[in-house]
Amino acid sequence: MNVVVAGIGETPMGKYPDRGVHEMIKHAGNAAIDEAGIDRELISAAYIGNFNGQQLTGQGHIGPLAMEALGLSHVPTLRVEGACASGGLALLQGVEAIRSGRHQAVLVGGVEKMTHQSTAVVTHALTSAMDIEYEANTGLTFPGSFALIAHRYFHEYRNVQQEMAQVAVNAHDNALLNPNAQMHKQIDVDKVLNAPRIADPLGLFDCSLVTDGAAFMVLVSEELAAELETSSEHRQVKITGSGHGGDALTLHGKQSMTSFNSALRAAKQAYGQANLKPGDIDLAEVHDCFTITQIINTEDLGFFEKGKGADAVAEGITARDGAMPINTSGGLKAKGHPIGSTGISQAIEIVTQIRGEAGERQVKTADKGITHNLGGTAGTCVINIFEGA
Amino acid sequence: MNVVVAGIGETPMGKYPDRGVHEMIKHAGNAAIDEAGIDRELISAAYIGNFNGQQLTGQGHIGPLAMEALGLSHVPTLRVEGACASGGLALLQGVEAIRSGRHQAVLVGGVEKMTHQSTAVVTHALTSAMDIEYEANTGLTFPGSFALIAHRYFHEYRNVQQEMAQVAVNAHDNALLNPNAQMHKQIDVDKVLNAPRIADPLGLFDCSLVTDGAAFMVLVSEELAAELETSSEHRQVKITGSGHGGDALTLHGKQSMTSFNSALRAAKQAYGQANLKPGDIDLAEVHDCFTITQIINTEDLGFFEKGKGADAVAEGITARDGAMPINTSGGLKAKGHPIGSTGISQAIEIVTQIRGEAGERQVKTADKGITHNLGGTAGTCVINIFEGA
Repeated sequence: MNVVVAGIGETPMGKYPDRGVHEMIKHAGNAAIDEAGIDRELISAAYIGNFNGQQLTGQGHIGPLAMEALGLSHVPTLRVEGACASGGLALLQGVEAIRSGRHQAVLVGGVEKMTHQSTAVVTHALTSAMDIEYEANTGLTFPGSFALIAHRYFHEYRNVQQEMAQVAVNAHDNALLNPNAQMHKQIDVDKVLNAPRIADPLGLFDCSLVTDGAAFMVLVSEELAAELETSSEHRQVKITGSGHGGDALTLHGKQSMTSFNSALRAAKQAYGQANLKPGDIDLAEVHDCFTITQIINTEDLGFFEKGKGADAVAEGITARDGAMPINTSGGLKAKGHPIGSTGISQAIEIVTQIRGEAGERQVKTADKGITHNLGGTAGTCVINIFEGA
Repeated sequence: MNVVVAGIGETPMGKYPDRGVHEMIKHAGNAAIDEAGIDRELISAAYIGNFNGQQLTGQGHIGPLAMEALGLSHVPTLRVEGACASGGLALLQGVEAIRSGRHQAVLVGGVEKMTHQSTAVVTHALTSAMDIEYEANTGLTFPGSFALIAHRYFHEYRNVQQEMAQVAVNAHDNALLNPNAQMHKQIDVDKVLNAPRIADPLGLFDCSLVTDGAAFMVLVSEELAAELETSSEHRQVKITGSGHGGDALTLHGKQSMTSFNSALRAAKQAYGQANLKPGDIDLAEVHDCFTITQIINTEDLGFFEKGKGADAVAEGITARDGAMPINTSGGLKAKGHPIGSTGISQAIEIVTQIRGEAGERQVKTADKGITHNLGGTAGTCVINIFEGA
């Protein structure tokens, strides 16, 4: 059974020194429920993605916190965590709850509050997504890990630093047209290439943002959607394929550093379930935690051959007006990366595009979209396929 | 469809200054898989309960870490967290994955490493299970919360400090016969009553333990179990009913401080699914994070009338040789409370008893058992019912 996205809601992404997680959850969660036009009593389960509230704000057990904030304390809920894929995992749990017939309407959401902490604390919190004993304790950080991945990609194929810079430029261009994006600033390739180095070859503009934000969705069965539809003025969007792939947590445990098994596994499952091929997809939101990652992800999704993802960027194929628009939202790089909510936020962009409601950044053809949400150095990947009715 | 417990494994509970989470996971996970006698390739999903690795060890994203440690890196996995109910939630996710027909064999597990930290750090980490902004920031701690609950119970019914002490004595008596228990020390009621106060009326012996430990289970479909059974020398145990109840995270958001809505909701669901009544249950493992909690839990499970749980303790009904044995394992109080694994560890005791393999602490009648796993100040409750074939 397919799953219908009945309502979406998110906070603008950015810095909220004056708003706690309760307020962010209320903003996004109530917006999703209100848009769905659903009686709150019908929501019978909730799945909340949160990466690291415990180190960043001291807050765990965020499921019941979210439900209490939304006046849904009676709803059974849990936090799911798979590093940066926590939001995608929450979405997936919701999809499976509906598909199995256990629930008719569920709330899925994600939240992260990060910007109140120093860069040092945030960097430390991020390392919890890698193997602490075997990787972090040797001095590896997240930018460091993906710098190794970029170098390996250069070694196996060619130096694509120029194209990585174009990935960042595209992201900022798209974010300019997204009112919910954190960044609203045009940049050019030179600026990216000349920016301070974070972990060579990754400069400041090759890295995604530190962001506060929350994103929620109401998912319902097709049966319940039929009852709600009369009250909805939006094009109906269904989730027709989902995949969840695992891989080793550590870099040294992986078969390849330039193609992620977790993504390949999740993609195979999602395409199979939806009965679609990569060529059928109109647009994608992929996990651009770093610019090199976007290039690898578009190859793993089967849009481009291995080693050819950068060519596609150079040729403008991945730009908003290209043949395969990638991250029209601005992506993690420029819309922002409030970690636990990123997977849901990606899905919200695809739903908005398929509905034809993306305003100035609307792409021409948006009937079938895909989200690709990666956790850590690709130990986890969640992929979902969305189709317009 | 019912779910069959194919294999169980746990570390002894205690202090492991020289063992990291990898080693604890390997010990418990491999034991469960080996006992199940299952081809590892058949395991297609895994759910890992972990409460607060991030604040206690710096480690998040523990799903892929666990799979890599067990040689199952390809298996899709995620961490589930609902404070002290994280283990129960992992078990529940596994049960639902099998029941829905999505998977034939899954691994569920829990792990927590705590004893290397100071009491101050552990207390701080525990507060992440309550509302940081509204509760912890006012100075409330977990022992403080349950002390308030105990006082309220005394106000609504009567002072049951003597019976609370007997709860601790029973727990230590049972743990003496459990080789995997952290405590192997007989105590008496006077010792409990005269112990240093932690948060009045809770003394040192009214509080559960700080523990390192891991616990894993292999769950399979009845169909697959039929194929495995020839190779198993254990009585088959099925999970016939499961419930997950939510409630407000905060104490002030709850309707009652002496009966937990999350438990009532989860119990109703689990009993309904199993088509059983409280009187049908032979034994139970309930969440005795504090002695007062055990008394409340046995009332919420319907074993005793409200306000009468303490009488049952005084009359010996909840002792190992009583009519309704509670926490024959020693419970959180004396077996130990490695938070993320507690829900699985409770289930392991019930399975062991139903199999008739509990050795010196074996109860006479053990055909139907129940586990009750509470998160935080009861914002989450997971209940599972087990039956022997």
